[in-house]
Amino acid sequence: MKIYEMQIAPNPRRVRMFLAEKGITNIEFIQVDLQKGENLTSDFKQKNPFGKVPVLELDDGQCISETIAICRYFEESSSENKLMGESPIEKAHIDMWQRWVEFFFFMPTGMCFQHSSGYFKDRMNPIKEWGEECRTQVEKFMHHMNKHLEDNTYLLGDKFSIADITALCTIDFNRVNQISITQEQPHLKRWYDEVSARPSAKA
Amino acid sequence: MKIYEMQIAPNPRRVRMFLAEKGITNIEFIQVDLQKGENLTSDFKQKNPFGKVPVLELDDGQCISETIAICRYFEESSSENKLMGESPIEKAHIDMWQRWVEFFFFMPTGMCFQHSSGYFKDRMNPIKEWGEECRTQVEKFMHHMNKHLEDNTYLLGDKFSIADITALCTIDFNRVNQISITQEQPHLKRWYDEVSARPSAKA
Repeated sequence: MKIYEMQIAPNPRRVRMFLAEKGITNIEFIQVDLQKGENLTSDFKQKNPFGKVPVLELDDGQCISETIAICRYFEESSSENKLMGESPIEKAHIDMWQRWVEFFFFMPTGMCFQHSSGYFKDRMNPIKEWGEECRTQVEKFMHHMNKHLEDNTYLLGDKFSIADITALCTIDFNRVNQISITQEQPHLKRWYDEVSARPSAKA
Repeated sequence: MKIYEMQIAPNPRRVRMFLAEKGITNIEFIQVDLQKGENLTSDFKQKNPFGKVPVLELDDGQCISETIAICRYFEESSSENKLMGESPIEKAHIDMWQRWVEFFFFMPTGMCFQHSSGYFKDRMNPIKEWGEECRTQVEKFMHHMNKHLEDNTYLLGDKFSIADITALCTIDFNRVNQISITQEQPHLKRWYDEVSARPSAKA
């Protein structure tokens, strides 16, 4: 199996951290330089028509795009160390948090970066005012997480899950937006230090 | 079980259509008027801190927000009529398409509406230029779907799935943006007519 990725991008890191938590190591990683547009070639678009990384390529040539779809493949392929839940209600609760983190934190983080920095201005239309609006959403969500983590070890109470992985990768990626945990967010900081200390965070 | 929703909103319709496909009927639907802000009361925010519909409330009082998380709960609670896949690879492929439809079609549709119309301007900051950018993304995705559906009965080949439900609800909701299937999109039209004719589409 191969994964096409760009090491420093946040979505590939989510997948690597997920795989590391599961102890899956038999994968070849192939670097794709997004800034050079290596993801926009017709060869790469045969793997993912939307030209995004990461993409998982199975040994039979089938390709799976989208971070959560790739994680789902590995989650469903083994019954060990479930990071997306066991019972229907646990799966639903993890999906809920995972989506909250994606929609209200991860996605505005990415859009804040793209619309404020102009990093991809050769292939998109950056709108500064939208970038600033996204910044506000990011800061709001960190405030919400801080409150929630006062009474919860992880986002899902005692259960470490894929939602924590997404949230950690989002906080670290926010360096590009110059947004970091503030002194008024001690619970978020406690959680951040704990999750960052997991060996998988270095994957 | 209860579902808090607003009948005309697109996310609640996705859940109703999903439940209708599964033949699940033992649910009480409670209307929440978003325009009046009934979703922003502190009572409602105890069910969903982000004040969004739909919310599923189980008989023991536990609440699940987020359309896909609610669908996941029902999908995992029974082994019949799977709309999110059976094998690991099928689940991953459905997740992938489901997310493509959400990120590149459903979400820009919602943002085009909110940022162009000012419908929620009492509680958000509409940015017209971003609304227009989202309109372009919506039109692009419909073009992509049309090409894909030339060789595929449904988004996932022969398999009707939750991704088709999301796509149908998105196309119908685009009435608010005055975007509809064009004469140059016959394959999308063929798929649309077929999926619209399912009894669940009236749920």
